[in-house]
Amino acid sequence: MNNKKYVYAFGGKTAEGKADMKNLLGGKGANLAEMCLLGLPVPAGLTITTECCTDYYDNQCKLPSSLMDEVWAAMKKVETAMGMKYGDSKNPLLMSCRSGARSSMPGMMDTVLNIGLCSETIDGLIKKTNNPRFVYDSYRRLIMMYADVVMEKSEGIEPKDGKGIRKVLDDMLDEYKKQKGYKSDTDLSADDLKLLSEQFKKTIKKVLGSEFPDNAVQQLEGGIKAVFKSWNGKKAISYRRIEGIPDDWGTAVNVQAMVFGNMGDDSATGVAFTRNPATGENVFYGEWLVNAQGEDVVAGIRTPNPLNDDTKNEQNKNLPSLAEIMPKIYKELCDIRNTLEKNYKDMLDIEFTIQEKKLYMLQCRVGKRTGVAAVTMALDMLKEKMIDEKEVIMRVSGEQLEEFLHPILDAANEKSHKVIAKGLPAGPGGTVGVLTLSNEGAMELAKKNIDCILVREETNPEDVEGMRAASGILTARGGMTSHAALVARGWGKCCIVGCDALHIGDKTITIDGKTYNEGDTFSLNGTKGLVYATAVKTMKASESTLYNDFMRLVEKYRTMGVRTNADTPADAQQALDFGAEGIGLFRIEHMFYGENSEEPLRILRNMILSKDNVEARRRYLDALKPHIMNSVRATMEVMDGRPVTFRLIDPPLHEFMPKKEEDIQAAAVQLGITVEDVKKRADEIEEVNPMMGLRGVRLGILYPEITEIQYEALFEATARLINSGKKPHLEIMIPLTITVKELKHQKAICDIIHAQVEKEFNVKIPYTYGTMIEVPRATIVADEIASVADFFSFGTNDLTQMTFGFSRDDVNAIINEYKSTNILKHDPFQTIDVEGVGKLVEMGVIKGRKQKRKLKIGVCGEHGGDPESVKFFYKTGMNYVSCSPFRVPIARLAAAQAAIESDRKE
Amino acid sequence: MNNKKYVYAFGGKTAEGKADMKNLLGGKGANLAEMCLLGLPVPAGLTITTECCTDYYDNQCKLPSSLMDEVWAAMKKVETAMGMKYGDSKNPLLMSCRSGARSSMPGMMDTVLNIGLCSETIDGLIKKTNNPRFVYDSYRRLIMMYADVVMEKSEGIEPKDGKGIRKVLDDMLDEYKKQKGYKSDTDLSADDLKLLSEQFKKTIKKVLGSEFPDNAVQQLEGGIKAVFKSWNGKKAISYRRIEGIPDDWGTAVNVQAMVFGNMGDDSATGVAFTRNPATGENVFYGEWLVNAQGEDVVAGIRTPNPLNDDTKNEQNKNLPSLAEIMPKIYKELCDIRNTLEKNYKDMLDIEFTIQEKKLYMLQCRVGKRTGVAAVTMALDMLKEKMIDEKEVIMRVSGEQLEEFLHPILDAANEKSHKVIAKGLPAGPGGTVGVLTLSNEGAMELAKKNIDCILVREETNPEDVEGMRAASGILTARGGMTSHAALVARGWGKCCIVGCDALHIGDKTITIDGKTYNEGDTFSLNGTKGLVYATAVKTMKASESTLYNDFMRLVEKYRTMGVRTNADTPADAQQALDFGAEGIGLFRIEHMFYGENSEEPLRILRNMILSKDNVEARRRYLDALKPHIMNSVRATMEVMDGRPVTFRLIDPPLHEFMPKKEEDIQAAAVQLGITVEDVKKRADEIEEVNPMMGLRGVRLGILYPEITEIQYEALFEATARLINSGKKPHLEIMIPLTITVKELKHQKAICDIIHAQVEKEFNVKIPYTYGTMIEVPRATIVADEIASVADFFSFGTNDLTQMTFGFSRDDVNAIINEYKSTNILKHDPFQTIDVEGVGKLVEMGVIKGRKQKRKLKIGVCGEHGGDPESVKFFYKTGMNYVSCSPFRVPIARLAAAQAAIESDRKE
Repeated sequence: MNNKKYVYAFGGKTAEGKADMKNLLGGKGANLAEMCLLGLPVPAGLTITTECCTDYYDNQCKLPSSLMDEVWAAMKKVETAMGMKYGDSKNPLLMSCRSGARSSMPGMMDTVLNIGLCSETIDGLIKKTNNPRFVYDSYRRLIMMYADVVMEKSEGIEPKDGKGIRKVLDDMLDEYKKQKGYKSDTDLSADDLKLLSEQFKKTIKKVLGSEFPDNAVQQLEGGIKAVFKSWNGKKAISYRRIEGIPDDWGTAVNVQAMVFGNMGDDSATGVAFTRNPATGENVFYGEWLVNAQGEDVVAGIRTPNPLNDDTKNEQNKNLPSLAEIMPKIYKELCDIRNTLEKNYKDMLDIEFTIQEKKLYMLQCRVGKRTGVAAVTMALDMLKEKMIDEKEVIMRVSGEQLEEFLHPILDAANEKSHKVIAKGLPAGPGGTVGVLTLSNEGAMELAKKNIDCILVREETNPEDVEGMRAASGILTARGGMTSHAALVARGWGKCCIVGCDALHIGDKTITIDGKTYNEGDTFSLNGTKGLVYATAVKTMKASESTLYNDFMRLVEKYRTMGVRTNADTPADAQQALDFGAEGIGLFRIEHMFYGENSEEPLRILRNMILSKDNVEARRRYLDALKPHIMNSVRATMEVMDGRPVTFRLIDPPLHEFMPKKEEDIQAAAVQLGITVEDVKKRADEIEEVNPMMGLRGVRLGILYPEITEIQYEALFEATARLINSGKKPHLEIMIPLTITVKELKHQKAICDIIHAQVEKEFNVKIPYTYGTMIEVPRATIVADEIASVADFFSFGTNDLTQMTFGFSRDDVNAIINEYKSTNILKHDPFQTIDVEGVGKLVEMGVIKGRKQKRKLKIGVCGEHGGDPESVKFFYKTGMNYVSCSPFRVPIARLAAAQAAIESDRKE
Repeated sequence: MNNKKYVYAFGGKTAEGKADMKNLLGGKGANLAEMCLLGLPVPAGLTITTECCTDYYDNQCKLPSSLMDEVWAAMKKVETAMGMKYGDSKNPLLMSCRSGARSSMPGMMDTVLNIGLCSETIDGLIKKTNNPRFVYDSYRRLIMMYADVVMEKSEGIEPKDGKGIRKVLDDMLDEYKKQKGYKSDTDLSADDLKLLSEQFKKTIKKVLGSEFPDNAVQQLEGGIKAVFKSWNGKKAISYRRIEGIPDDWGTAVNVQAMVFGNMGDDSATGVAFTRNPATGENVFYGEWLVNAQGEDVVAGIRTPNPLNDDTKNEQNKNLPSLAEIMPKIYKELCDIRNTLEKNYKDMLDIEFTIQEKKLYMLQCRVGKRTGVAAVTMALDMLKEKMIDEKEVIMRVSGEQLEEFLHPILDAANEKSHKVIAKGLPAGPGGTVGVLTLSNEGAMELAKKNIDCILVREETNPEDVEGMRAASGILTARGGMTSHAALVARGWGKCCIVGCDALHIGDKTITIDGKTYNEGDTFSLNGTKGLVYATAVKTMKASESTLYNDFMRLVEKYRTMGVRTNADTPADAQQALDFGAEGIGLFRIEHMFYGENSEEPLRILRNMILSKDNVEARRRYLDALKPHIMNSVRATMEVMDGRPVTFRLIDPPLHEFMPKKEEDIQAAAVQLGITVEDVKKRADEIEEVNPMMGLRGVRLGILYPEITEIQYEALFEATARLINSGKKPHLEIMIPLTITVKELKHQKAICDIIHAQVEKEFNVKIPYTYGTMIEVPRATIVADEIASVADFFSFGTNDLTQMTFGFSRDDVNAIINEYKSTNILKHDPFQTIDVEGVGKLVEMGVIKGRKQKRKLKIGVCGEHGGDPESVKFFYKTGMNYVSCSPFRVPIARLAAAQAAIESDRKE
């Protein structure tokens, strides 16, 4: 039929696979093979490829016809390596069937153990082990697992009473123990277990209408199918959605000889990390249990013993370590640790079992670690000459680096608290504070130095002061690019948005039917989107030497510039501290939000409400100018010598309209018109689709005086700075351009004002004039636009909105559904859509540079702080990315990684 | 400096230019040269090129340094040809300076006549003509014109009292006549005129502070500059905006020897058309005046005489014709008519002057004509073997053809009525009816068979019944693609939108301070956007043989298909009558608007308001199915055998929410919830930018049951038709696709329903499955999309919205401003933006066809009915365009013209 090789055998210090065959054999299978090749003691087995899984699904969930022949051929090798025979009545071999995807999906798929136990083999095994209780216990476990995983879930046999078979059998077991007066499973004797096994089989026949297969051959095939089937189980699918693992990767199946850590006190099982995964310290770190199986360690019923002295802590310090009890085996394990690290050049997470004093390696993989550990290990391994500088940089993810930038919840302590709700992880870090539902409340608490969490349905610009005062923000609605998320991320503030379970009342909130009051203490994990109604411990990964050593290396390899989006001196300073090289986006309109914005906002409002009265408008604009100038000057001063890109006012005017009754009344008084007139005028500038209405450069063309006043403020601020001995580096940026003619129109005004101010201040004012590229049309006519623009800055937020037809205010539910049905891989507002939006970006870059070879090009959308997107921008040849201050280090790291990756490819 | 030839001389049966040099010499100059080459009597002169105009503007309004030398060299030739000498004291030649752009801009630029009259030449001219009155009259005319056009307007000398110099001099003339007791200019004697001329010159010195140049050389240069300057006069610019003439075309200047039709009763002047421009009849048609100058004919102060018997009408039948009074000259003119038509192969508009029995040709150009005349002439000229079939088709514009499709205002009668307001010409044709401000009013009047005009602030789907009942629609707001405009154009109903001057009260409207009541009679010219408060006569250009003969030729050359956008059997039938070959867009949601939509709309509303209650939603959908099915079936039956593309429900759901209190109450009762709950649920589905929110295929993915019910209705309707012996041709179209995965998702549902219905009705149901391409991203990934889609239909409305970031509901004012500042050439919603949106369309076509060579591709946006856009779509290789029924003949014509044009280019 086809010539694909589906099965790779391993065992006896040899293997058909190896570590770099992860895509085909899954992580587990590839590493089992590698360990065999390294001569480590691995129970023999075989790996069925991920390709086979894909073929299985493409073929209406049927195994390829050639598969089982290959399996049985490989089983011969396994039998030889283990010196046992599968299904044999005298020396029977038992097998396990486990999943193993390319990327670890712990606990998400099904496993069947003890396969091969049946009437034919039970007696042989009893004779061989001389342990009937062990054999019957294994048998009843197989029956229970098989009925559930293979028969019910995989083969889809529906239980008659609607209750799952697993539950039925569990109940029987409990009932039996109750009748017998047993307290624990260990009280069950071999006879008890034998009897139960027979009863189980009868019940299965009754409930499922089908026999438990008393046949080793059939069992193995059923086990393999069950693992494949579980790739599309509900749990597995939703895990893949969250982790961004493609459905078509498929899982491999590892069929491996069983070894038992539960065959008495000379047996054991354990897990270990070759270095401390929490701190990165170079010590062997692990836990183990005597006379136990793997799942007992993970399940956490018994407190595991420490591996060695380095692993001892408050909980386990009185339990004997493996080093103490089985020093020979511990020594063997230490040698294995060294062999593995030398081979993989990384920290590994291993699983082992000791069966009657013999050590078996069951798993090894690159271990997960905290950010601090990642950086520590990478730098240590550099010193140990295990890896080079480039590899150090590649070893740390943006997410891991982020840990250094915010206070976080103490992970160990967090585990002991109950998550009461989940939302989107919009602002990173962790925080603990008392609930407040109003901006005023937040500000009052802040004055008293009480940390608080501001809870809102969603936020808007009027909430900015409350948001700043709060130590964390929690909203019921909104997506990753909602107002709350954008603002919080900009500030590096802990924030969870779109928390559906949250219902907000007057002074209380309700989650899952439970009511909480203002003043109650909550904790937020903004990195993961978890909400606690209790006080979790927090910790601070401070600005350590570690961080600085690492960033020094990053800087050595970074070539693309990193700027920040900042609109205040404080944000600018924060970004400088984080290594920003300039400001890529200063939004002039941001001076109308937040602190000290009352007066300028009032003037702006009156200007807008002056309608067709050009004189009045001009009067208000004149009054506005000093505010803009001061705001501009203060930030430029902080950035002295570094470029600052000022974007002219962009949003639709109605965003600035008064919403509160008192503000409306104030405006009416100031303008000398009625409250009704204010409302009417505000209504008149409402738009059906404001995102695609009167905003950006369009404002400046319909109301040139709005442009003029901004130019005046920018040039005057620059002139004053120059005259006071500073080195301001002014860049003026026009938003929402769709044709070069808009740019020319606004440039003509600019030229006039520029000449005026130069004359007035008697100083040369150098500046560059550029534009946002954020509307699809601009990317198409980028060549023409480049004839006038000195620089481009891609606004990939808006470009994504218009390229997808996705209003980011509205499509949260759509994007979630699209991700969960696999229509979209990522939220395109988080990670740039390379195939669609990316193509337009590339077109814009190519066309722009064709017109002007040295055109400076950057990006200032939210994507500028997303590592994957930054790498894409690097590839397109951008000069810089710009992102919120707290993303600057992450962007710097991503830029360095992009440079290294591209170097490696060449 | 440069080697450009700026001046082209003509006269004496020879010329340096010719007819096909229009771009360089302007229409007038090129045709003057051509007439010379044809041996016709043309006063000699020279043409300064349009290129010179462009250089003049590029050079800060300075004439190129080489120009005047060239002019004087050419003037030598003019003098030779005319046997006179410019500036000569004995035999002086007088010149005129007139503009002449590529495309006619009648009356929009300035002219200076009688140039060359000064102290030096006056006496010589008096001696030569023996007519001092004529000479002084010419002199005072020159002074008045020159002071105004050259000194004030062109040289920019500001009059001291703020009143224009022309007005000052006019007032002086009037005052003089008053003092003398004269009634008419003709009462002024030579002495009067001499005295006045001297007074004028003094006044000019006083008011403008500058002397009238008593110097022939200076006068000529001044005249040339003035014409160039007037290219950028206010009138000229706004005319160019309206006509879409580019600013950089520039105007030529024609400097031509003066001839005089006002030198006595053997002198005359006239205008004529080589055929009747109103009817197309092959008769010489014109008017003339004895002893008069050209402007007297145009000015309409005296009733002009008929050219011949064919030109006699009620007004002029008693005046002698030229044929009667000057038979010899009439004969000469008739010969010229034949020469010209033979040469130009078209109907010409000519101007002539007779000076002392000598005929001079002053102008000839292709004549404007009505639609009926255009078709008549083209078909006649085909019979006369003057032009071929292809040329016949090229001779008629879409606008001209449109005259055949609607009742129109009688142009002759329309002139005598006063335009009280202007708006955008949204729906073509003309109508007369009584005002009504409500839908109910319109419906009541319609019942009584009284034509009425529905006046609204703007319209929305709830107005559809009133709109249908009215014979015309007038709105104060909205653009060319507003709801009112789209609906009206779809129906071919007369409609004017965005009529700013209109203020709507309770039962009255106010325009320009004047109030009109319901019941008052108004007339609308929907083709031009003119509003009358009186009853203008209407006429009907019926479905004549003429029209049918012409369309038969069109069909012979058309290759691209033409379909219609239609959602009712009536529209479908109308479109079939107009030659549609199928339906390219049947919008399922349109069954919820308009007549008989109450019940289905109510069900749809309840479905939407059922929110998360899937069962309730499904129940309402089931109730909806028969409505959809009946609607689908009725239209398919009309289109039997022809393709019908059904687009699944597209708009955001809140469009269907009840707005009227009574509808809200009804919904509350039906759903068993409170009025507040209804409002709250309606609010919940409101979106910030609905155009980019939950609509199109997104609805079908979030609520698959909405898709299912539509598939069921479509397949069942088709099955029933097949079973009743019909040949339904079903095409299913998914709106708003951005990735092929959406299409696959919806196709999976389609496959299931298709199989179900085939089984249920025991019949094979053929169909094709395609998608709209209307979001920028779809054009970029069109290759992937084509792997699933059988066809593409470009939705260029939405594609334009998103490519520009233009919400068509909001950007009317922006587009107007952009057009008037020349930032945009066209409204991109009327004519496709070839450089931007067009590039995406091309990309989509190329990528789609690369994937599937024979992919069927069409367009179903409003652009499908715009001739220029249709030609673009032809070039991209589309299979068809689809447009509203009343645009079908225009699209057919444009398609034929596109085929012919592309043929000619090859």
